[in-house]
Amino acid sequence: MRELELLERIRKAAESGAAANISIIHSIGDDCAVIRPRPKEDLVFTTDFVLQGRHFLLEKQSADDIGHIALARSLSDLAAMGSEPLFCLISIAVPAELADKWLRGFYEGLLSLAVKHKITIAGGDLSRFDNVVADVMCCGRVPRGKAMLRSAAKPGDSIYVTGRLGAPKRPEPRVAEGVALRQAGVKACIDISDGLVIDLHRLCRASWVRADLEEVPIATGATLDDALHRGEDYELLFTTRETDLDGIRIGTIVKGKPGEVRYRRKPLPVKGFDHFDASSR
Amino acid sequence: MRELELLERIRKAAESGAAANISIIHSIGDDCAVIRPRPKEDLVFTTDFVLQGRHFLLEKQSADDIGHIALARSLSDLAAMGSEPLFCLISIAVPAELADKWLRGFYEGLLSLAVKHKITIAGGDLSRFDNVVADVMCCGRVPRGKAMLRSAAKPGDSIYVTGRLGAPKRPEPRVAEGVALRQAGVKACIDISDGLVIDLHRLCRASWVRADLEEVPIATGATLDDALHRGEDYELLFTTRETDLDGIRIGTIVKGKPGEVRYRRKPLPVKGFDHFDASSR
Repeated sequence: MRELELLERIRKAAESGAAANISIIHSIGDDCAVIRPRPKEDLVFTTDFVLQGRHFLLEKQSADDIGHIALARSLSDLAAMGSEPLFCLISIAVPAELADKWLRGFYEGLLSLAVKHKITIAGGDLSRFDNVVADVMCCGRVPRGKAMLRSAAKPGDSIYVTGRLGAPKRPEPRVAEGVALRQAGVKACIDISDGLVIDLHRLCRASWVRADLEEVPIATGATLDDALHRGEDYELLFTTRETDLDGIRIGTIVKGKPGEVRYRRKPLPVKGFDHFDASSR
Repeated sequence: MRELELLERIRKAAESGAAANISIIHSIGDDCAVIRPRPKEDLVFTTDFVLQGRHFLLEKQSADDIGHIALARSLSDLAAMGSEPLFCLISIAVPAELADKWLRGFYEGLLSLAVKHKITIAGGDLSRFDNVVADVMCCGRVPRGKAMLRSAAKPGDSIYVTGRLGAPKRPEPRVAEGVALRQAGVKACIDISDGLVIDLHRLCRASWVRADLEEVPIATGATLDDALHRGEDYELLFTTRETDLDGIRIGTIVKGKPGEVRYRRKPLPVKGFDHFDASSR
């Protein structure tokens, strides 16, 4: 498929499917996308790589699945802040032989998730490269000062997750759930992208608190170790004193060594923590 | 260098060097960067890949140069809209053996350009990969409705560039020049990233006009062909009826076949146009 035809498809899909988002003034085709922010709102931004051989295997996953994952990873970060998706920029580089059919499949997977969560594709970059490399930047909005943060957990909060953990699956970012939690007054949240223990550790380190896990909801077919350490769950983990929210209670935030995570009174090793790979997410 | 130490360095440089940008509420370390837009301003967004072997050669260019180029490409897009830089997100993936010294050099090149143009590093993604791959997203601000566009050239406008063309050099994005042109009332602008003719063609196609080139200012050591078709100049090309602006006059916008570029009455081929590679920039 020629580049112009592809851009035209993206433009149409973005315009038709992903809601009449009046904030976007100029889009694909100029040097930059131009956005008109609304008053009394903060904007939140996140970017995530999806790299061949690292985040997916070209020969084992469909183009559609990879497009889905590329957007899902960034949307999940928006969900963790309790923000409504606004627009995204899609940078994608592929080998010449994948420029037609594969790229169409990639965009089909990505666009169907974009339509579902009402996020507009406002631009990006398209290039040729030996490997498939995608970088998706997502922008969302929250009422001023209301973004949920990693750093807002308080001793006495209960810890909840939005679903059972540990089974590999096609990630469904918890966008609506994130918005609902924020509206219900939840202040502290993170998405489980790298694994329950490491992401809970990050939240506790940012909040200068310890977490005592009591029960961990294990997905069908998964082990306790999967539920504790396997990533790519994309469930939200949040802490609150509210007691009437949807979610599975898994433990309590307490005063203690910042970042420590205990399970049934035993400190857990923070597995999978890779200094070099850990991103600013 | 460990990831935390690197993030700390970036955080400090971003906080100290790149101006007290009160729009940025939460930065590196949370799921998303949080930005508080100012009233009566539009925000502009652009993203550009810098890929090993495609946009640079690892063995021929220093890490510092590559960091500079990675940010310069996106900053140049902000300049073309006449916007003031606000913040950027840096996604970078490198092989493990480059994670220490090389990555420090990359950030040094990038940070010194960031400080110069007062753009804050608000976050990003850091990953391991077989090749060096960077994607830089830049956000800038313009007074509401005042962004310069590719689509605003009018018959009767003179065409100008901000400098001589055709010599490869370390790109210096024309950020201050872009702001000054926008403040002087210029409406139509593009940056010359892929070559004078192809970028002028893009502007003319977007504006439904033809361009008649009369004189082309050739950089020392370059040929006319270099000046017409060589990319990576990062000068701005703008069109206006104003006559007292800084810039080198190179021709006139006329009614005619949309996108056509003539040089001394002869239509020029649009060299270097690669459908697949042409991005949405």
